Amino acid sequence: MNNPVTSHPKLVTSVAQLREILAGVRREGKRIGLVPTMGALHEGHLSLVRASKAECDCTVVSIYVNPSQFGPGEDLDRYPRTLEADLEALACCGAELAFVPADGEVYRAGHATWVEVGSVAEPLEGRCRPGHFRGVATIVLKLLNMVGPNVAYFGQKDYQQALVIRRMVEDLDVPVEIRICPIIREPDGLALSSRNAYLSPDARRRSLVLCKSLHLAGELIDQGQRNARVIAQRMRQVITTAEDAQIDYIALVDPNTLEPVDEITGPTLATLAVKIENTRLIDNCLLEPKR
Amino acid sequence: MNNPVTSHPKLVTSVAQLREILAGVRREGKRIGLVPTMGALHEGHLSLVRASKAECDCTVVSIYVNPSQFGPGEDLDRYPRTLEADLEALACCGAELAFVPADGEVYRAGHATWVEVGSVAEPLEGRCRPGHFRGVATIVLKLLNMVGPNVAYFGQKDYQQALVIRRMVEDLDVPVEIRICPIIREPDGLALSSRNAYLSPDARRRSLVLCKSLHLAGELIDQGQRNARVIAQRMRQVITTAEDAQIDYIALVDPNTLEPVDEITGPTLATLAVKIENTRLIDNCLLEPKR
Repeated sequence: MNNPVTSHPKLVTSVAQLREILAGVRREGKRIGLVPTMGALHEGHLSLVRASKAECDCTVVSIYVNPSQFGPGEDLDRYPRTLEADLEALACCGAELAFVPADGEVYRAGHATWVEVGSVAEPLEGRCRPGHFRGVATIVLKLLNMVGPNVAYFGQKDYQQALVIRRMVEDLDVPVEIRICPIIREPDGLALSSRNAYLSPDARRRSLVLCKSLHLAGELIDQGQRNARVIAQRMRQVITTAEDAQIDYIALVDPNTLEPVDEITGPTLATLAVKIENTRLIDNCLLEPKR
Repeated sequence: MNNPVTSHPKLVTSVAQLREILAGVRREGKRIGLVPTMGALHEGHLSLVRASKAECDCTVVSIYVNPSQFGPGEDLDRYPRTLEADLEALACCGAELAFVPADGEVYRAGHATWVEVGSVAEPLEGRCRPGHFRGVATIVLKLLNMVGPNVAYFGQKDYQQALVIRRMVEDLDVPVEIRICPIIREPDGLALSSRNAYLSPDARRRSLVLCKSLHLAGELIDQGQRNARVIAQRMRQVITTAEDAQIDYIALVDPNTLEPVDEITGPTLATLAVKIENTRLIDNCLLEPKR
């Protein structure tokens, strides 16, 4: 009996029931926080739940593997689904509500509307995964409309996604605040990701090249290196020490526009996407040159 | 002093001020109705205001000539702008709030998000005016997010637009009810439209061919005609009695899907778009065969 006493979140599966419960919460003047997830929850997700708990009275965690953000040949079918463990984890964090919609509750017959974000959605992941951000923007807007939260929480691990959502919320005047919370890492530096579960022990070891290359980028900038091409080249060398690494991109970009940077003169995002043993991993780090 | 005592709507020009006022209205548990318009108000718009007044406690009328729904070469620049008269008309109807945003309040620097509706947005107007419904869907979603109404009102005159908005609201789970109100016509049958102001007296007379052809379609169906091609052909003959009429389309379609109908077996929408003296007019009529 070492477990602390925990209370399971209320499990809600229909939009109608969700709206009814939250209308009551809202009438009481309570603040609602939303943490949208695809399940397979890890400490990264749970840190978002804790951030919501800290400033909201009712935290809703949605768990939905959104088919529209997966491309053909991507991992929709094998994406990890661990609902029971997810609900246990949410109980430990004290999330009030788990919204786990059935597929038919989300995309109904005749669905024909998509949210298209340009600009920050176009490079990097947008180029590698056509249609991905269309699916992300659409599902997030749907969830925001279903829940009507005061605040919604996203992880910096998916930096570009967070930027795309910020853009959408600003452009469409969605009445919600967006918080972006820090990346959570394993003790050895690997950024937490539900997809890490795909990695064999050996690939898990090789996947450390991602955070190592970001670390190197930081060191180089600390040492005075200002040439983005040189830094990216050195990062590439680190990545390719993992023999089977397939690089989708390694980029140094403006953290607001995601436009490529030539010379490091201010805050810069180092970001990369790499396949290790056919598992596509992403990671990023916000770097700032000291004066 | 024949005028009834009227109270002018509160004029609001910023989104921030709008939100603040409406948050108070909402706290009082009042129902909010939204009538989105491009101004140049006529009895068609005012019938929507009255419908809102009948079931809401606070009616917001937005007046904004939305540039993103006009194509190149369309009439954005000369679209009638009659703000003073509009506010007078709204005073007579008792609208509580006129939201007249400046351009910079609506599309801000860096705007890059668009709502794309497929299916019902594709034929008819969608084909004639590429990008039109993208602009419409985007501005309407923005206005819904700015105002947060319980109900929003649209005219059947823009039948396809109303269907596109219904589709969007359903697909994106926007928490609002959509009402579609009947077409208001001049005594001689011409459907009210802000664009009627473009017509010379002579063109105004010729433009009656639109409602006449719809009337004929109804008569033919009443007489037992069930062949949509024959009906459309007879409608075309009526239209072409106006010597300069340029027909964009004359169509008999399913009122829900807007797919073309071959044989009239149930409720059918007759709809048309015709240029008279370079003014593009649309009109439609829902027809139902008697058994």
